[in-house]
Amino acid sequence: MSKPLSFQQVIMRLEHFWADQGCIIWQPYSEKVGAGTMNPATVLRVLGPEPWNVGYVEPSYRPADGRYGENPNRMQMFIQYQVILKPDPGNPQELYLRSLEALGINPRQHDIRFVEDNWEAPALGAWGLGWEVWLDGLEISQYTYFQQAGGFSLDPVSVELTYGLERIVMFLQGVRSVWDIDWGAGLGYGDVLLASEVEHCVYAFEQADVEALTQLFRIYEAEARNALARGLVIPAHDYVLRCSHTFNVLDTRGAIGVTERAHYFARMRDLSREVAQAYVAQREEMGYPELKRSWVVKDAARQWVNEAAGQQSMVHFTDSEPADSLPFLLEIGTEELPAGDLTSAIEQLREQTPKLLAEARLEHGQVRVTGTPRRLAVYLESLAPKQQDREELVKGPPAKVAYDAEGKPTKAAQGFARGQGVSVDDLEVREMDGGQYVVATRVEEGKPTPEVLAKLLPQLISVLRFNMTMRWNESGVAFSRPIRWLVALLGDQAIPFEYAGVQSGCTSRGLRPLGSPELAIKNASDYFGVMAAHSVIVDTGERRASIEQQINRLAAEVGGQIPADPALLEEVTNLVEQPTAVGGAFEEEYLSLPRDVLITVMKKHQRYFPVVSDSETVDLLPYFIAVRNGDDQHLDIVRRGYEEVLRARYADADFFYKGDTSKSLEEFLPRLDTLTFQEKLGSMLDKTRRLEQLVPRLGQMLGLSEIEIATATRAAHLCKADLATQMVVEFTSLQGVMGQEYARKSGESDGVARAILEHYLPRFAGDILPETRPGLTVGLANRLDSLVGLFAVGLAPTGSADPYHLRRDALGVVNNLIAAELSFDLRAGLKAAAKLLPVEVPEGTLEHVLAFIVGRLEGVLREQGYRYDVVAAVLAERGHNPYLTAETVRALVPWIERDDWMDILNAYARCVRIVRDLDQTYPLAPALFAEPATERLYQAYLTCLGKVGPESTVDELFAAFQPMIEPINTFFDEVLVMTEDKALRENRLALLQHIARLTEGIIDLTKVEGF
Amino acid sequence: MSKPLSFQQVIMRLEHFWADQGCIIWQPYSEKVGAGTMNPATVLRVLGPEPWNVGYVEPSYRPADGRYGENPNRMQMFIQYQVILKPDPGNPQELYLRSLEALGINPRQHDIRFVEDNWEAPALGAWGLGWEVWLDGLEISQYTYFQQAGGFSLDPVSVELTYGLERIVMFLQGVRSVWDIDWGAGLGYGDVLLASEVEHCVYAFEQADVEALTQLFRIYEAEARNALARGLVIPAHDYVLRCSHTFNVLDTRGAIGVTERAHYFARMRDLSREVAQAYVAQREEMGYPELKRSWVVKDAARQWVNEAAGQQSMVHFTDSEPADSLPFLLEIGTEELPAGDLTSAIEQLREQTPKLLAEARLEHGQVRVTGTPRRLAVYLESLAPKQQDREELVKGPPAKVAYDAEGKPTKAAQGFARGQGVSVDDLEVREMDGGQYVVATRVEEGKPTPEVLAKLLPQLISVLRFNMTMRWNESGVAFSRPIRWLVALLGDQAIPFEYAGVQSGCTSRGLRPLGSPELAIKNASDYFGVMAAHSVIVDTGERRASIEQQINRLAAEVGGQIPADPALLEEVTNLVEQPTAVGGAFEEEYLSLPRDVLITVMKKHQRYFPVVSDSETVDLLPYFIAVRNGDDQHLDIVRRGYEEVLRARYADADFFYKGDTSKSLEEFLPRLDTLTFQEKLGSMLDKTRRLEQLVPRLGQMLGLSEIEIATATRAAHLCKADLATQMVVEFTSLQGVMGQEYARKSGESDGVARAILEHYLPRFAGDILPETRPGLTVGLANRLDSLVGLFAVGLAPTGSADPYHLRRDALGVVNNLIAAELSFDLRAGLKAAAKLLPVEVPEGTLEHVLAFIVGRLEGVLREQGYRYDVVAAVLAERGHNPYLTAETVRALVPWIERDDWMDILNAYARCVRIVRDLDQTYPLAPALFAEPATERLYQAYLTCLGKVGPESTVDELFAAFQPMIEPINTFFDEVLVMTEDKALRENRLALLQHIARLTEGIIDLTKVEGF
Repeated sequence: MSKPLSFQQVIMRLEHFWADQGCIIWQPYSEKVGAGTMNPATVLRVLGPEPWNVGYVEPSYRPADGRYGENPNRMQMFIQYQVILKPDPGNPQELYLRSLEALGINPRQHDIRFVEDNWEAPALGAWGLGWEVWLDGLEISQYTYFQQAGGFSLDPVSVELTYGLERIVMFLQGVRSVWDIDWGAGLGYGDVLLASEVEHCVYAFEQADVEALTQLFRIYEAEARNALARGLVIPAHDYVLRCSHTFNVLDTRGAIGVTERAHYFARMRDLSREVAQAYVAQREEMGYPELKRSWVVKDAARQWVNEAAGQQSMVHFTDSEPADSLPFLLEIGTEELPAGDLTSAIEQLREQTPKLLAEARLEHGQVRVTGTPRRLAVYLESLAPKQQDREELVKGPPAKVAYDAEGKPTKAAQGFARGQGVSVDDLEVREMDGGQYVVATRVEEGKPTPEVLAKLLPQLISVLRFNMTMRWNESGVAFSRPIRWLVALLGDQAIPFEYAGVQSGCTSRGLRPLGSPELAIKNASDYFGVMAAHSVIVDTGERRASIEQQINRLAAEVGGQIPADPALLEEVTNLVEQPTAVGGAFEEEYLSLPRDVLITVMKKHQRYFPVVSDSETVDLLPYFIAVRNGDDQHLDIVRRGYEEVLRARYADADFFYKGDTSKSLEEFLPRLDTLTFQEKLGSMLDKTRRLEQLVPRLGQMLGLSEIEIATATRAAHLCKADLATQMVVEFTSLQGVMGQEYARKSGESDGVARAILEHYLPRFAGDILPETRPGLTVGLANRLDSLVGLFAVGLAPTGSADPYHLRRDALGVVNNLIAAELSFDLRAGLKAAAKLLPVEVPEGTLEHVLAFIVGRLEGVLREQGYRYDVVAAVLAERGHNPYLTAETVRALVPWIERDDWMDILNAYARCVRIVRDLDQTYPLAPALFAEPATERLYQAYLTCLGKVGPESTVDELFAAFQPMIEPINTFFDEVLVMTEDKALRENRLALLQHIARLTEGIIDLTKVEGF
Repeated sequence: MSKPLSFQQVIMRLEHFWADQGCIIWQPYSEKVGAGTMNPATVLRVLGPEPWNVGYVEPSYRPADGRYGENPNRMQMFIQYQVILKPDPGNPQELYLRSLEALGINPRQHDIRFVEDNWEAPALGAWGLGWEVWLDGLEISQYTYFQQAGGFSLDPVSVELTYGLERIVMFLQGVRSVWDIDWGAGLGYGDVLLASEVEHCVYAFEQADVEALTQLFRIYEAEARNALARGLVIPAHDYVLRCSHTFNVLDTRGAIGVTERAHYFARMRDLSREVAQAYVAQREEMGYPELKRSWVVKDAARQWVNEAAGQQSMVHFTDSEPADSLPFLLEIGTEELPAGDLTSAIEQLREQTPKLLAEARLEHGQVRVTGTPRRLAVYLESLAPKQQDREELVKGPPAKVAYDAEGKPTKAAQGFARGQGVSVDDLEVREMDGGQYVVATRVEEGKPTPEVLAKLLPQLISVLRFNMTMRWNESGVAFSRPIRWLVALLGDQAIPFEYAGVQSGCTSRGLRPLGSPELAIKNASDYFGVMAAHSVIVDTGERRASIEQQINRLAAEVGGQIPADPALLEEVTNLVEQPTAVGGAFEEEYLSLPRDVLITVMKKHQRYFPVVSDSETVDLLPYFIAVRNGDDQHLDIVRRGYEEVLRARYADADFFYKGDTSKSLEEFLPRLDTLTFQEKLGSMLDKTRRLEQLVPRLGQMLGLSEIEIATATRAAHLCKADLATQMVVEFTSLQGVMGQEYARKSGESDGVARAILEHYLPRFAGDILPETRPGLTVGLANRLDSLVGLFAVGLAPTGSADPYHLRRDALGVVNNLIAAELSFDLRAGLKAAAKLLPVEVPEGTLEHVLAFIVGRLEGVLREQGYRYDVVAAVLAERGHNPYLTAETVRALVPWIERDDWMDILNAYARCVRIVRDLDQTYPLAPALFAEPATERLYQAYLTCLGKVGPESTVDELFAAFQPMIEPINTFFDEVLVMTEDKALRENRLALLQHIARLTEGIIDLTKVEGF
């Protein structure tokens, strides 16, 4: 192999490559920026209608990422290569892949993947959809279609490519530390940059003068406004960049409090938007000078997609009408769809295709919808050659008007027939709308299927909906990701239509590793065969099965197993077109890292399958299995890449772990002051302090022992500390897990450590639940604090938005209490939480929160299969106590299923119905009972009352109530309650009111069906 | 011709070129810098012993150069390409020239010249010697050997190459405005940068908030110190850069007063030095990691000078001793010597060569010393084959000790003979030191000439002295410019020696345009022939003659003449090795610009010869004649280049002229507030205000009319205003000239306009002098103000340093007064000037200044050929009045030449000698005179006294004195002055004292020879 490219050679290659494609080559900016995006060559030039194609290097400063040069991958300054293509040239992915080839990266020898990764910068009023690009598992680039910037919707959309130069060069050079990169001329990256890296870290973390920098921010902001007042875009933007960098240093210095942070962001966002507006206004005033020329980058070496798609010679559009039913194919070729969108699109097409075909009166055979990340395929076994004819009855005049006495059509009938285009003779008389009317049968002849499809297919595509959509070209069409080709074939006949600027045809594309070669589809029926012949497994199920079989086989080879993980399997299936499983290993020493760390990295970050020794013990083996998109050639290179990435990540994790455990967990607490919980509710440290007070109170309410309360209180003190550890900063999903681990390492008791983890449980549906009462208590406190606090500041979830995951919190409260069989009065808990908040809690808030939790409780019980009325009946009385509710519902069911249930219910109902509309409660005067039936009922009531109270179970309630049935019925049979005698009447009603109240606190039987 | 390179292609070519030579390719800095030099990759990396070779682009911000995008060549931001080579690779010029070839610039088709241009940045504690590189007259690069940075002497020295990218690309693309440059991808430089250029101008000139920026500077300075306190080099340097840019914006905004400016500079200089110190300390502490490897860039394509010089096969070193006298050659090959250094080096070699040869006892024939910018040649027609022997007499013991009575040698003689290595028989007896001594004759035999030369030649080179010298390689040798080869031949035998790291040989080099080919010199006698054969005219006189002949011929072709200009002719002769004159033309419309502007640009900036219609009228013709270094091929390309440069400069001048004349001269006055005269003495505006007050007083002293005084006062008001005009900012030498021009344009009177120019006259030796008295008066005021002011603040010139040109000022005072025949008492003038100063004038200052001026006056008179004693005699009494002094000296000479002069002098001397040592003055009592001789002398004295006073001319003095001669002589013959009688004695002495005082205020005859 020839000598790998040096860092500077990589840059020069990229500059040449993009210059050759027609980009201008720009320079790094003269201010410190956080990313190439902030260079005016991106953040401003993407605005407005003018074309702009540019490539440049950008040293990017992110002070908080600094690690004093001790980390092999993480620096406060790294170097990007940034490309902007505006407008979309139609083949940006192919251009990007060719740029990798220019660096000597042959796609045939590697696994290059486009993995969903969207981008949002609220401070810039900017977002876009796109991908991370993975090279043998290593993220080397970001590839984004900008949708918005500076608060403006972008039209045209810009394609942004950001190369992580260090990553790429480390890969090319096979070095494991950024500092070991050969920069050029025999000099190392470390020789060039390490000293300044360390210095910048010392400055930002330890030395920067907070007061001075705070002043700088203020002056920069004021000067930005001063420049904006004269419409000076670039001078203003320079100051915004200085604001941003100054803020970052202050933040790194730990000097940004919670309230300030939000304010700082708001100020920077406002400035950014104003700069964008000023730029747009300026270009408009200049008359958009660049609009005068067409400037779309072109592939300098090859002529790509668009041209090929236009090769009419390959497309067999004909006007002939098919005679028989024919197979049909629609293939929508896209840039890599997000895994979830692929699943969703297939589902939608499965539903919409038959529906639209039916509406279009096209008879068809079996519908097969499937797809890969790059294609959605709708295949019909057969499709009728033409629409079915449609008959329509049109109601005319009444028969007696339409025909004269002799039965001859009148002028009215003739006029009607003429109007409907039918002969008078074809009119019929029918019984309609309660009378006799003339009707005409209008027949609409079915059109040839190709003609119908040409209109139907665009419609079919356009009805697809996705969570997030993007625009990419002048068609303005929004889709999950850009559509790059369309195949539509009825038998061997192409169905011509245009959608999203793409002309349909009969040319599909093959695998990316093979350069996405054009594949001609001669007949719809050939489709799966052609694809299979070119190694594309279009069918999702087939891919899934293949993966499953391959990974299990490989796992078995190392004596292991793959734990079942349908979600990961589904995702991986949706990331590849030709799955080839690759086994890899990692250093055994890393097995000493916490298991969750190892698995999180493998699954969440790399989409690798972990391997365990056997499915019972779940001991990890030092192996993984990944799935390559491509065949089995050059697998060694790919494997080496996979392993190297994992190794680097584990090395990182190891570095974090060692760093974190060099301090006690408690020592991380002060840093929580810089982590915002919510602006008005303070920092995570503020929250921690509230939990420390709330936990003992809740513990008492829950009946915890003193030892348990002490454990819980200590856990509350530490429960958020891991948020400030490097590991959790890097792997957010490990919060709690690392807290537990680090607590143990810090010498905390097992109980405390356990409670730290447990206070997050359950983290998702199906997760494990707390096993200890201290853990449950801290979790309860955490959730109640969040619920009350966020409701109080007006951040209750809305129908669509629940940014603080309060639904999950409420569900956690409910599920944990039920599972732990702990009776707990939420009302008292909420009140206790409210008292500790730093904000005033508006009137009615606690009731809102309670109702919100009760709503989740209702859902939980309904999902368990309990009848709506049963649940409602219990919730009405016991909703504030989830476990009690659940118990009560459970106990209620057998009663309702009893044969004599209606007797019980009816007896109670008779009492209630007569009193429930009364607007006052009458005093009971037993001395005045006149009749024996009343007296007997009263005695029965007293007996029941002696056995029942608000705390009673339903069993107790009904057992005590049963003896009252007979006296109740007798009473109503013998006594006229509503007598004229007011005193007598009110005394009888008072008795019934008392009986009605026997269920209070237990169940509201009026909500039960049959009441 | 193929399409010219775009801007971005030029950058990419340079990056490739320098990467190929072994440089690392670096990026523009993340702060706004004024030049690539300020990037840490230069300003820090040049410090210390470690190697460093780097190339990078640097957008450079100089806000004050902004012209709102309206100027085709001048911008507040321009883009450099910067290269640092450390250590000197031995052939940096050749590498540079090859980089131009990489851009498609063929040296054969152009005139590429290295023109002396040194560099100094006191604020960075940095300086270096070097060149501007001219491409067909256009300055395209700077090429400097850094000698010092951050206050540190550099070792090794760094070579800095700075390409002006816009200039080069405009040249390549043939466009006349920077905004028309093709950047790449069809986009213009203006499309990319014009909008931000204009915005930055508006911001810096009009909008920046002065108070805010002043605060920013303060904070930056404090944070730089804060970073330095922790030894954080780069963070500190970043803040220094921010200080610098902030200062530049404030300055552009017109917000920097005189006192502040100096303070700001001092603060930045201190910071820069501290940063440099911190960097050096840091690298030292790191143990200079880069020292471990040798990293010298190499020419990637060719193997150059050093290797060729080492080719022993070509060098004919032999040990044989020449038998006969042989011709000898020493050629010192250098990078282009400054014109003045070439002249000086030739003169020194002419003096030193015979001297050193004589000392070395080498007989030789005629010495011929000559040279070109690239070579100094010493040629000896013949040189003896060996040194002359040397005989030495050594004195031994006295003869009577050395020989016994019998004349036989004693032991003493034997011992002496043995000690001297001679036989006792060879001892001789000689008369020495007043006695007879034994002497031995010791003969030192002459060594062969080659052996002597090998030691003598390095010595010869090392004795050369230059105004400024530089070091460039590890030899540490200092010379005018780097020595790159050495030829030393005695006949056909090479004389081996090493100097400045270069090994002597017999290989010279040819012309640059031909790629400096190696030229073998087989025999010293071939030298001039070989050089001529390769078109190098080594002889200075021959080149001068050739140029003179060529330019006169070309001037005649357009019907014009070349005004005699020996200095320019001398300079041009020293800039070329093969002179080829090229005539060019410029647009006639530019003839409307002031003539001095046109000539200044041609001569000072371009070294072109102007052409006039005939030598009497000196009307300029729209032509020029330049002298190319090279032959007559591709002259059209070169001529086009010459013309284009001149056109651009005239376009600039036209732009300035129009801009300046859009306002009245008076309107420029306020801006003088921002131009420092001297920190303590205030701004040029402060100085102007002083002159306005001083001029009327001096006018009265000089006897000007009221109208003249009014004219002078108005001129004083305006005399400095042109310093703030664009034209003078650009062409400093036009100060006064433009003032006169603009004053006329502003409607000032001719007298005022003329006085503005004249106040600077004479500007140099041989310059015209003021013709009007107002002009002279303003000039006198200006100079007296400078002299008194600068002496008062301690800035009197020292032996070597006269930064404020006070010698010139004093000379101007003297010469103008003499030429105008104006009697003027400097003492009164200095006193008046002192009164107006803003500083206290220390005791004795005025006397110092007067002595300083009198010193110049003495020089002037001595240069006119007056005898030392004559000048001194007059200066002693009349030095404060230069014109009177000059008149007196002139009048004195005929008296001294008279035959009876000694009679006069002796008579006077007799009187003076007897009284001059008295320490008191006695009262004269005529009544007490006892003798007739005394009485007669007294009467003669009274007669003389009646005709003579301090204002008298010498003619009056001596005419009146002559009758006293006889009485004086009689008095001394007859009277014993020093009688015992005290009263009598003192009265006689009193008379003589009175006589001695007759010359007071006229002349001090005691200083005259013969007294």
